[in-house]
Amino acid sequence: VTVNKPAKPLLQALVGERCGRAPWWLMRQAGRYLPEYRRVRAQARDFIELCLSPALATEISLQPVRRFEMDAAIVFSDILLVPHALGQKLEFREGEGPLLEAIEEGADIDRLTQHGALARLDPVFETVRRLAAALAPEVALIGFAGAPWTVAAYMIEGRGSRDFFRAKAFAYRDPVAFAALIDMLVAATIDFLAAQVEAGAEVVQLFDSWAGVLSEECFERWVIAPTQRIVASLSRRCPGVPVIGFPRGAGAHYERYVTATRVTAIGLDTTVSVGYARNRLQPLATVQGNLDPALLLVGGDVLARAVGGLRRALGGGRYIFNLGHGVLLDTPPENVALLARLLRQPIEVT
Amino acid sequence: VTVNKPAKPLLQALVGERCGRAPWWLMRQAGRYLPEYRRVRAQARDFIELCLSPALATEISLQPVRRFEMDAAIVFSDILLVPHALGQKLEFREGEGPLLEAIEEGADIDRLTQHGALARLDPVFETVRRLAAALAPEVALIGFAGAPWTVAAYMIEGRGSRDFFRAKAFAYRDPVAFAALIDMLVAATIDFLAAQVEAGAEVVQLFDSWAGVLSEECFERWVIAPTQRIVASLSRRCPGVPVIGFPRGAGAHYERYVTATRVTAIGLDTTVSVGYARNRLQPLATVQGNLDPALLLVGGDVLARAVGGLRRALGGGRYIFNLGHGVLLDTPPENVALLARLLRQPIEVT
Repeated sequence: VTVNKPAKPLLQALVGERCGRAPWWLMRQAGRYLPEYRRVRAQARDFIELCLSPALATEISLQPVRRFEMDAAIVFSDILLVPHALGQKLEFREGEGPLLEAIEEGADIDRLTQHGALARLDPVFETVRRLAAALAPEVALIGFAGAPWTVAAYMIEGRGSRDFFRAKAFAYRDPVAFAALIDMLVAATIDFLAAQVEAGAEVVQLFDSWAGVLSEECFERWVIAPTQRIVASLSRRCPGVPVIGFPRGAGAHYERYVTATRVTAIGLDTTVSVGYARNRLQPLATVQGNLDPALLLVGGDVLARAVGGLRRALGGGRYIFNLGHGVLLDTPPENVALLARLLRQPIEVT
Repeated sequence: VTVNKPAKPLLQALVGERCGRAPWWLMRQAGRYLPEYRRVRAQARDFIELCLSPALATEISLQPVRRFEMDAAIVFSDILLVPHALGQKLEFREGEGPLLEAIEEGADIDRLTQHGALARLDPVFETVRRLAAALAPEVALIGFAGAPWTVAAYMIEGRGSRDFFRAKAFAYRDPVAFAALIDMLVAATIDFLAAQVEAGAEVVQLFDSWAGVLSEECFERWVIAPTQRIVASLSRRCPGVPVIGFPRGAGAHYERYVTATRVTAIGLDTTVSVGYARNRLQPLATVQGNLDPALLLVGGDVLARAVGGLRRALGGGRYIFNLGHGVLLDTPPENVALLARLLRQPIEVT
């Protein structure tokens, strides 16, 4: 017996079916810009506890969808939970971002262990299960992970950075140890994403937020190759599950990334030209993006014009509307409500 | 009577003459990685006083050339001296980077004044004159300024940032006031660069360090258009003076930047592919770059291999060797000495 499942616009866009408008979600759609998030946040001792509490993380993931009716929920979690599960000491200090006990040499990598790592992430999978049960039938559920380069860069730097020079220098100085770290992260990421899919995620996104600091050679080795392995392995373990790659800052390397990694969809950062996206990327994959988050902060007519322009340029092909980066902390929720109204209107394609 | 001036390899590369090897200099070649810099730095009360002391700034500019025999000296100065001269309060706190009294609204821009601004920068021109007199005849002298977008971004943000969202939001919210700020910076930058050329600078570089955070539309408006105006005006006021544009992070927009602005040379950040540089940019302009500063930090064989690869790929055309970003603070001076030895060897072009 085949059951007719209701169509989910986001999944339709990923397989190239038309649904008459661009489906949408926003990176960091759940978070501090929402007052209801801040109330839930206050119930957990720290950010890690928040991510690993299925009740709180489920509620937070649902908040923006309830308010704005996006076409997808994304599980509330953090890309650094993988190193945490591998045994690296992690904390989030209020207002400071993440702090990890930085990897300084190969021996620090040897101390990490995949043994039991997946079990330590069980609360994330429980959140995914609860979300899958709670979401309306037309809303898709997105799982995610950090891509190996970006996660490794944080693990070596120990914190955020503008250029991740310490991580790059480590990779140049000791490529064997760095490759061992990347290999461990490839394996852990595949397990982590596959487990989210088994728990109910219908699509996964790989965040390579710091892909844009690498030379071409390092981009091939530390972005393209690991992503290829993850996509290939997921296509065997979870056949048909779409993968959205987001190599933020990849610039002129975007086309190579799409061709080589065989992702289903490509997340465009704010700098990507819509002409390039339409002519070079959209024939290869569904494109997702790339409204400047600063426009969502400003709102009003400026936002409306930019949204119209993006939808006219890309809405004729495989397209998911999103930002080029996460929602900014100071974004007024009413601007997101305006965006939701704009996106409900039918697209006029140029 | 025409006097036969000795050929300067850097200037030869800018006009497309061959000199048998790639001339070189390094962004931030004068600075904290050199112990002799730190000794001179201690003689000034603060960083602004250091930049505005011709005796100290001349000495600092000469230090790396004396040690490593680069093909050019660049005047020791800072891109934020222009807002300082326009009347914006600026300070540099040790270890914190620049702090400006941030522009919050149009009225803050109205309070800035070009009246007397150039005179407040006289010490920079005196440094240029002293350098022109002191340099060996084969060493070129580079003047510079920040490009209007990057300087405006600091003026609004008040400090460094990863994404300059506050500056972008200002430009979206009040494009008229932002355009007035850009116009003022275009005029001030032309005056500042022309005065450096009149004092003896033989080539100027425009640092657009934060060009890489802009959407395509903003890139056209706030990077391309102001740079076009500066290049066009300089070509009238200082005919024949080469301009090196450095739109760091411009990614897929590099080719458009070169074509539209008509810069003589284009600075490549670390992420630019050498194939793209050779095939798309080098036919249009002299290319400069783009060794990863992390490689100079690491040194040894890894550095030697990368330098060899870059020189073989780009050395067959118009090329100036440089980094893709400034010298890192922890760079061992002996690695720069190794680089100097490598660059003295003749190029084998592939």
